[in-house]
Amino acid sequence: MSADAARRALDAKTKPRGSLGRLEELAVRIAAITGELDPRPLRPVIVVAAADHGVAAEGVSAYPQEVTRQMLANFAGGGAAVSVLAREAGARVDVVDVGVGRPTGNIAVGPAMARGEAEALVERGLRHEFDANVVALGEMGIGNTTVASALAARLLEAEPEAVCGRGTGLDDEGVARKVDVVRRALAVNDGSEPIDVLAELGGRELAFLAGVAIGASRRNAVVLLDGFISSTAALVAARLEPSAQAAMIAAHRSPEPGHALVLAALGLEPLLDLGLRLGEGSGAALALPLLKAAVAILADMATFESAGVTDAGR
Amino acid sequence: MSADAARRALDAKTKPRGSLGRLEELAVRIAAITGELDPRPLRPVIVVAAADHGVAAEGVSAYPQEVTRQMLANFAGGGAAVSVLAREAGARVDVVDVGVGRPTGNIAVGPAMARGEAEALVERGLRHEFDANVVALGEMGIGNTTVASALAARLLEAEPEAVCGRGTGLDDEGVARKVDVVRRALAVNDGSEPIDVLAELGGRELAFLAGVAIGASRRNAVVLLDGFISSTAALVAARLEPSAQAAMIAAHRSPEPGHALVLAALGLEPLLDLGLRLGEGSGAALALPLLKAAVAILADMATFESAGVTDAGR
Repeated sequence: MSADAARRALDAKTKPRGSLGRLEELAVRIAAITGELDPRPLRPVIVVAAADHGVAAEGVSAYPQEVTRQMLANFAGGGAAVSVLAREAGARVDVVDVGVGRPTGNIAVGPAMARGEAEALVERGLRHEFDANVVALGEMGIGNTTVASALAARLLEAEPEAVCGRGTGLDDEGVARKVDVVRRALAVNDGSEPIDVLAELGGRELAFLAGVAIGASRRNAVVLLDGFISSTAALVAARLEPSAQAAMIAAHRSPEPGHALVLAALGLEPLLDLGLRLGEGSGAALALPLLKAAVAILADMATFESAGVTDAGR
Repeated sequence: MSADAARRALDAKTKPRGSLGRLEELAVRIAAITGELDPRPLRPVIVVAAADHGVAAEGVSAYPQEVTRQMLANFAGGGAAVSVLAREAGARVDVVDVGVGRPTGNIAVGPAMARGEAEALVERGLRHEFDANVVALGEMGIGNTTVASALAARLLEAEPEAVCGRGTGLDDEGVARKVDVVRRALAVNDGSEPIDVLAELGGRELAFLAGVAIGASRRNAVVLLDGFISSTAALVAARLEPSAQAAMIAAHRSPEPGHALVLAALGLEPLLDLGLRLGEGSGAALALPLLKAAVAILADMATFESAGVTDAGR
């Protein structure tokens, strides 16, 4: 209903029909998610969930595990990429430690965590409080590109080679090692229910973010996806609660090969394609001005009638 | 020199090298153009040049010529797309009437204007005053997609079919008519020097904007291109003064087929690809937050050293 009203309102604005392209689609989607033609002020929060991963022991990251904790301090100090980009976009950053310094099990040799813990983390995310109508999913966790690759491979029934990429800086040998680790993880973990897949292959931050996505969608907030890991958490959310998918908007597409597959499975076309492969929620922060612009077009532009401009009717 | 310093500074920031992709390239380019690692505050202006075109008599637009003047009032009232998007982006809009209600000659039957008038308009643009270090090129003028198509076809030695598109709303028959008009324009106007091509095929707003682009580049300001017409004015500028090209950044790529050809000729990769086909400077306004974000990353992010984060060196 809000979507139809938004489309009609956009068609009355002083511009050829549809000439603002995907910005108009974005305005319609935001109206549909929030149920409001003018949901301003947009109050964006970037939830950055952080955790450590047993699979880091397999040498699948260019960085040592201690960097996860070091980056928590960098977020707090305001010097990380997401800190800077969130300030520019007028968004709050909400860093949530769900397991830094307490790695999950190594998925290459067994499950990451018990099913009960995964359920509890989803529930915790679902109940996470925020004063926001746009909730972006950010993450930090050395090794979590491998975790997301294993999750995506299982949920999408894709080959490890099709989802594994360079992460934040692997060379060819590193990528080959990651593919091998994901293959082993899929062999030793064989659950098929979404919550079992999440417990066996997931990281704690992905479980928490899946819950955040579900909780935000239930509260009619926009769920803004960042990169491959963030989007894989959103895919888990959509498998756990399919109606959550309608609240999602994809900020960007990263060069990580699994990202395009995950976004396609979610039926999402990303707004930006800038070769971003950092995570943290940085790409989501960069897309926020487009959301604000889309809302402003719908709310603030003059109509052909109000501005006295001749309408060609197309 | 500023570009090298910018690259070194970015490599010291707390993120894997190059992981912010094209945002890093953008930061380097802005540093190179302005000569400053931190050119803040960015002071953006969108110069919207407006004029009418004799070729509108050929029925090449979905809109009647009176819309050009009506839109001037809409810009002044703040209700046009570029007005709304500029407010969101913190940019000024500077509307310059260079020939509204005083159409150029119909290029399908003869030259648009005398060489002397084209020279005077470029000179006027070149001397146009602005308190800005980012100058976006916007335009309004019913029929000016046809004018830009003719200019691009001549300057790029392309076939009319390769550059002509739907503009702001033509059907197949309208596009065929536009191709025919461009073919006739190229047949009756045969100058080859850039200033002659501009006088014969150009509109007054394109001549003025070409001058604005040259003037801004001489003052070390970023020249931000919008859509096909704006970018064609920039191509004219680059032909008149090749050094102007180094100051240009492409905001987006429109579906207009000539736009990709013009951007390729300028060696520019656009930041956005959102199906925008409105003009006015609207796409440039949408890209401004990316410029601000790029500058902020370079200026405000912590380094590995300052934040005490372990650097993997890649």
